[in-house]
Amino acid sequence: MDISKLQKARYDYKPKMPKILLSDIACIKTYDEESTESIGDQAQIKKLFPRTYGMSEVTIRRGKSAGTGKEINIGVILSGGQAPGGHNVIAGLYDAMHKSNIDSHLIGFKGGPSGLLNDRWMEITQPLLEYYRNTGGFDIIGSGRDKIETEAQIAQCEKVLQKHEISALVIIGGDDSNTNAAVLAEQFAEHKVPVQVIGCPKTIDGDLRNDKVELPFGFDTATKTYSELVGNIERDANSSRKYWHFIKLMGRSASHIALECALECQPNIALIGEEIQAEKMTFQMVVRHIADVVATRAARGNNFGVVLIPEGVIEFIPEFQSLINEMNERIAQKEQEISKLASSKERIAFVSKLLTPEHCKVFIQLPGFVQEELVMDRDPHGNVQVSKIETEKLIAEMVDIEMAKRKKAGCYRGSFNYQTHFFGYEGRCAFPSNFDANYCYSLGYTSFVLIANGLSGYMASIGNLHDYVDNWQPGGIPLTMMMDMEERMGVMKPVIRKALVDLNGIPFQFFKAHRDQWEIETCYNNPGPIQYWGPENITDRPTKTVWLEQMHHE
Amino acid sequence: MDISKLQKARYDYKPKMPKILLSDIACIKTYDEESTESIGDQAQIKKLFPRTYGMSEVTIRRGKSAGTGKEINIGVILSGGQAPGGHNVIAGLYDAMHKSNIDSHLIGFKGGPSGLLNDRWMEITQPLLEYYRNTGGFDIIGSGRDKIETEAQIAQCEKVLQKHEISALVIIGGDDSNTNAAVLAEQFAEHKVPVQVIGCPKTIDGDLRNDKVELPFGFDTATKTYSELVGNIERDANSSRKYWHFIKLMGRSASHIALECALECQPNIALIGEEIQAEKMTFQMVVRHIADVVATRAARGNNFGVVLIPEGVIEFIPEFQSLINEMNERIAQKEQEISKLASSKERIAFVSKLLTPEHCKVFIQLPGFVQEELVMDRDPHGNVQVSKIETEKLIAEMVDIEMAKRKKAGCYRGSFNYQTHFFGYEGRCAFPSNFDANYCYSLGYTSFVLIANGLSGYMASIGNLHDYVDNWQPGGIPLTMMMDMEERMGVMKPVIRKALVDLNGIPFQFFKAHRDQWEIETCYNNPGPIQYWGPENITDRPTKTVWLEQMHHE
Repeated sequence: MDISKLQKARYDYKPKMPKILLSDIACIKTYDEESTESIGDQAQIKKLFPRTYGMSEVTIRRGKSAGTGKEINIGVILSGGQAPGGHNVIAGLYDAMHKSNIDSHLIGFKGGPSGLLNDRWMEITQPLLEYYRNTGGFDIIGSGRDKIETEAQIAQCEKVLQKHEISALVIIGGDDSNTNAAVLAEQFAEHKVPVQVIGCPKTIDGDLRNDKVELPFGFDTATKTYSELVGNIERDANSSRKYWHFIKLMGRSASHIALECALECQPNIALIGEEIQAEKMTFQMVVRHIADVVATRAARGNNFGVVLIPEGVIEFIPEFQSLINEMNERIAQKEQEISKLASSKERIAFVSKLLTPEHCKVFIQLPGFVQEELVMDRDPHGNVQVSKIETEKLIAEMVDIEMAKRKKAGCYRGSFNYQTHFFGYEGRCAFPSNFDANYCYSLGYTSFVLIANGLSGYMASIGNLHDYVDNWQPGGIPLTMMMDMEERMGVMKPVIRKALVDLNGIPFQFFKAHRDQWEIETCYNNPGPIQYWGPENITDRPTKTVWLEQMHHE
Repeated sequence: MDISKLQKARYDYKPKMPKILLSDIACIKTYDEESTESIGDQAQIKKLFPRTYGMSEVTIRRGKSAGTGKEINIGVILSGGQAPGGHNVIAGLYDAMHKSNIDSHLIGFKGGPSGLLNDRWMEITQPLLEYYRNTGGFDIIGSGRDKIETEAQIAQCEKVLQKHEISALVIIGGDDSNTNAAVLAEQFAEHKVPVQVIGCPKTIDGDLRNDKVELPFGFDTATKTYSELVGNIERDANSSRKYWHFIKLMGRSASHIALECALECQPNIALIGEEIQAEKMTFQMVVRHIADVVATRAARGNNFGVVLIPEGVIEFIPEFQSLINEMNERIAQKEQEISKLASSKERIAFVSKLLTPEHCKVFIQLPGFVQEELVMDRDPHGNVQVSKIETEKLIAEMVDIEMAKRKKAGCYRGSFNYQTHFFGYEGRCAFPSNFDANYCYSLGYTSFVLIANGLSGYMASIGNLHDYVDNWQPGGIPLTMMMDMEERMGVMKPVIRKALVDLNGIPFQFFKAHRDQWEIETCYNNPGPIQYWGPENITDRPTKTVWLEQMHHE
């Protein structure tokens, strides 16, 4: 099989690690720092996690480690959507395990948590790993989105782990998967099943962050890949001077990706869902703001621009959210009548009449293709499928309508033509940047150190990420510390809190301080493709979000 | 203004040049090789270009050049769509001119040919160029798509050139722009206007190629940018194992981009328009072929895949082309009646009845959204707007329908879910690869050598591109040599012939020899992002199309 020259060369890349992890593995150990509380609803979380609540945060420093040297079996799972660097977590975990005892085994469960449930597995060996080091994708063992929740599932899972004589399980995933890791750690402790559970923070969306987790892995590579494309499109817009480009970026629950790409590329506009929600903006306000920028630029002869749109932005618009809730409720009541109407036109008319006047107003101002999607496509639960709406086209189309209105009214004389784009799959499986390659390998290595020190219910962590790799600080965070009670499908559940863009945080404030200028002037910045060789300030440059947050704290 | 670290570093890149161009500029000159004939309709082309027909191809070798050292003014125009490397052509031209005489001037006409007509210009200076070397985009002077055709326009253009005392004009563009360059060279000669005209071959589409022009510039960078994304999506497809990705790539008149990306990435399927036309394939044949591959892969448990689709593919399907012709003709006859029908449903019904039965059959098998686009959107001439059709969705949707049919018939039991993508604007303004940076700079430099040797009506050329840059061979090709008579808007015109994918050529034959395997097995290859530093076999690796063509010729 053909393998690209870059891939071959990346196999040989030796990830950098924090200095402390370069010591003999028998000479580093975890040290307890302060004991912790959950970030919310302490009483309830403590009640649900009596055995794993309140543990101490740990740091890794020099010291004689009692737990290394033993022959053990470790299990590993990749969970949820792909993120660049997953293979390196596994490589770091394997290499540390191997250094500790050459006879230990690493078992990969295939296709996510269901692989553990159904005992689909493969051993991860040195020769196998050589084909996956520093590559993107989760294809070494595959991934999946199942959860291990019910008692029967947990029992099944314990049986499989015991069959393989596995004494520690590493779960690489996002907030949900790490919540699941916390549940398993607690349950295993309760059932006296001797399996430690360690989580690793993954997600390109960037929403698994907090005071202790500076960044989930994959975010750096994904946003750099998107920024390459956004920068290229900006240059194209500025060269051909005839299109507005509306670029949707992955990220349904939070706008971190759009913000990071905005900081990198300095587009004319970047919508931030969290701000739209906080300001209680309406559709018309969002559209009018973009239209104002289009008009101001046009008056200066610039009939072009670039707008970044987070995938989930419309769900942050309160009036839209409220429209959808009402539609779900009222359509459900009239299910039978609606299903008899074949044409979208009839359905749109029917649904319009079902809605309260204020929601009807929101509904009818939507472009026809969106109304159609809303009345025609429903999910198996009968709910409107918001995720199917092509948000970038919806917003571009509404701006187009607004510009036509203004032109008719004589207050705009420019020309408005648009192109739309969506970047998501392009970045999830890219070759990890040097940052992610180093970070992930270090996370995997740290996971082993936590295991060797007998810990369970912890997330591997690396701090000080804006600094040179040498100075990164490995450690472990109790999973329960990141938890809170939240409503999921009508039931209160303990979950790891998703991090939204902090409107008081430095990255957003930096964006806010500059965006007026970026709107009117053309300040495009083109970061170019990820470089793996070359000047260090290019190959190893940090994620802008992290850099801004940490440099300003110092 | 912020400038990315990569951009700053690229400013300092010194493009490599063929060894011969590194000599003192006064010591290289052009040598006449064999005299030439046009590739088609020699009698007619000779009649239309009496003064520039039949000139000799030239090569550049060592020798005392009489033309260097003079103080001259040169004009330059960027024409048509952006392609990575345009700035480097200008830099090479400037540097050579400057080496020849430090007091010479380079005048850039702004916004394409219309800048020359309307005398919008700026001087290109050393300090200005420092901000554009090795960058993508055409933003240094902008580009445009106008042509200089009428006698009045040519006279106007001569006036502007004489006003600036310009003695040579370099036109950087595609087949149309170089055709225009040939016309200007001939006309200036006829009018005894002392302005030489030199063309440079640009287009990411790759369709300005022939025996003498191995590759237009920009193709390498654009296809490498697309291949990065295709490779990432392949890895994602293979990791999540649940989607078929239908990826449309730029390239309306030829399928070079899709073929190059297929050679790089080894997707399951790549449609090649030229083959579809040659084989007289119908829509159903194309769809059924993809469906067969989907089914075969599903039977092996692989419900995922990647399909590359050239933008113009449907225009290569004979029955579709014939349907469009009939629609244009018959809709025009019933214009008034149709415009009275407001809803797409009514129009679709009306138009279906207008068509002959065989075309009606083709029309009604198209997905609803395509029928709608065809009857609702027409261009200012009343023609159906084929370019607005989302080909990638059309084909994915038809495969979806086919899979549902097969499932119902019990001969397919897989699951088929698809995602669509379109890559175009992402690659047109990328930072030029080292290949394009070197190639374009050498083209610009060569343009000056042709000028210094008194030539007009030539295209700058660099041969031997698969070899080390040292061994590249600069020269000049008479523009008339590439010409043929073709019908344009009902009139026979002399044009530079567009190069379609040669079905007997080595690149297509290589693809053909491997595609059966790529269809069924998963042979994805992930070339990764363009690298500017690092191992030479990565940073300087040649375009696969060129490499295959030339390596096999040796």
